[in-house]
Amino acid sequence: MTLLDDTLARITPPDTGAARAAESRLNSLTKPAGSLGYLEEIARRYAALRHDPTARRGRGAVAVFVADHGVAARGVSAYPKDVTVQMLRNIGAGGAAISVLARRFDYLMRVVDVGVEEDTSAAPFNNVVYRRVGPGTRDFLDAAAMSAEQAQRAVEVGIDVARELAGAGATMLGLGEMGIANSTSAAALLATLTGLAPSRLAGRGTGLDEPGFRRKVEVIERGLGLHRASLAGPLEALAAVGGFEIAAMAGACLGGAAERMAVVVDGFIATAGAAVALKLKPQLDGYLFFGHRSAEGGHALALEALRARPLLDLGMRLGEGTGAVLAMAVIEAALALFHEMATFAGAGVSEKLA
Amino acid sequence: MTLLDDTLARITPPDTGAARAAESRLNSLTKPAGSLGYLEEIARRYAALRHDPTARRGRGAVAVFVADHGVAARGVSAYPKDVTVQMLRNIGAGGAAISVLARRFDYLMRVVDVGVEEDTSAAPFNNVVYRRVGPGTRDFLDAAAMSAEQAQRAVEVGIDVARELAGAGATMLGLGEMGIANSTSAAALLATLTGLAPSRLAGRGTGLDEPGFRRKVEVIERGLGLHRASLAGPLEALAAVGGFEIAAMAGACLGGAAERMAVVVDGFIATAGAAVALKLKPQLDGYLFFGHRSAEGGHALALEALRARPLLDLGMRLGEGTGAVLAMAVIEAALALFHEMATFAGAGVSEKLA
Repeated sequence: MTLLDDTLARITPPDTGAARAAESRLNSLTKPAGSLGYLEEIARRYAALRHDPTARRGRGAVAVFVADHGVAARGVSAYPKDVTVQMLRNIGAGGAAISVLARRFDYLMRVVDVGVEEDTSAAPFNNVVYRRVGPGTRDFLDAAAMSAEQAQRAVEVGIDVARELAGAGATMLGLGEMGIANSTSAAALLATLTGLAPSRLAGRGTGLDEPGFRRKVEVIERGLGLHRASLAGPLEALAAVGGFEIAAMAGACLGGAAERMAVVVDGFIATAGAAVALKLKPQLDGYLFFGHRSAEGGHALALEALRARPLLDLGMRLGEGTGAVLAMAVIEAALALFHEMATFAGAGVSEKLA
Repeated sequence: MTLLDDTLARITPPDTGAARAAESRLNSLTKPAGSLGYLEEIARRYAALRHDPTARRGRGAVAVFVADHGVAARGVSAYPKDVTVQMLRNIGAGGAAISVLARRFDYLMRVVDVGVEEDTSAAPFNNVVYRRVGPGTRDFLDAAAMSAEQAQRAVEVGIDVARELAGAGATMLGLGEMGIANSTSAAALLATLTGLAPSRLAGRGTGLDEPGFRRKVEVIERGLGLHRASLAGPLEALAAVGGFEIAAMAGACLGGAAERMAVVVDGFIATAGAAVALKLKPQLDGYLFFGHRSAEGGHALALEALRARPLLDLGMRLGEGTGAVLAMAVIEAALALFHEMATFAGAGVSEKLA
């Protein structure tokens, strides 16, 4: 049995009894029933996915998966490909947006090179874990982005990272990424997984102009045409047009759920990873939170297709896990309220009139 | 010159030069321009309102104003009036939702009795500041809720609290409230200030049933009819149908702006206070953030009428400042990014292709 098969088998449905117990506690707290809105749903869902009516809170963690994309050669990004390795260093060094936010909220962070073009593992960057599956994917207009074996290995990198963080005490895992051109790969994957048109899913990424945007849509359409015969299953689609970091995020969704962690998905590209994982294991949805609605292209449409309600909507489109981490602060606030608020009886507060 | 007049005179327009300097720094940071969305606008606005291009961050603070309402006698709330004084104690004792959140985010908190029916000042509750304007307002179906002199005193309580917190190092001030029946008063005020119909603004408050809701709308309509002749100015409207805590929040908006603090308004009732303050001083708007879109009644409509964009939309309808405080965590995250992210030059990251 592979690690992936074993992980899929270990994901069980959330515990509805724990959710009911959490609901009962929520209704005993000094506030009108339901008045904390989505925060109450978060507490119930957390209790259910942890299979723990007390909803005990552990550490928050964020995993940032970084990889390069062969399709960057097609001029689908406003930034040069070198930026991937430069940002790998910057994230590890603490200067990237996700580094600042993880530090601010005191989250464990793992920055993982899953396949950046330039191999820096011989003189490793600070705070970077090297789990390279290859020197970036192939251009999916030339060939499948990766082999089936690479796709599985990249998924298993994500599973491993989730397991390691669970072992370190994390009960909540945010997922982010960096990789020049990866919004092209994500749009292609989401198009094949949801049936939405590439022209509706693709966006301006990090700042494409209009000709660049048209080129991006055309590249996605050509790629999907080229690989039509091998897009039947989620792993096949991942291999055909995906990316190593997207595969790793899919694996981290599954690995996180198998460890009964709350998995918090970031924006457009992380959602592509989550969509792959959901196709592999639909019961996963009880473990997932979608951190925010990104301003990128068709993220709102993709979320609708997945029937996902994002926590935040702040017009962000940076990736790296930044939206996930802000949402994690909201989730932690919901759990603090759940644990620390007084009850009507304890505080001597009258309940609602009959 | 009264404290109110002096405060109105001290509010100056935000500094557009500081906003431009902040914009320039934002564009030097290792992220695509604009990709942090609303977080970038927050940093620019904060620099402008602080008149400080470096956007230095101080403490966050939250003021919770508590008072009773004579109109509670009309059966417009699902909870008995006693709950106001019980919650005053609970908030001070640390058991209320706002107490938990202020503690979690390490914000200064002031809990202010501006006029709860039961006077507990002789055996004062823990962590409560007594600035009582009266033992609750009068029922606005019998008479004006308060005298003009009381309205001004209550506004000045809010100004004082804002000044005191600025003196304690706060640069950001969240505003919340508690008071049984205050959503009736807030809806009446917002109706007269925005021109929206009471039936569109009123909501279920803490959980009214359908007959209770119809009664609430009727009470508001009758109150506005009764006081039609004395609703011309914001202070007059406040005296006629407002509440002491709503007046204090209006004052805290003004006092916070005069101290160049970022003022973060909570939900429906706090928005009524902000609407009064905006009528008194339209230039105030550069200092205000609206923390969230509440699930209560016509909050979304009121925000539109004020052309306000809320930061969060989590279906909350509790008040106390809970939505404001969650939004303050987002504002602080935006400022952390502004201060701590690396620049393209400093991190050796390539900029966008020409």
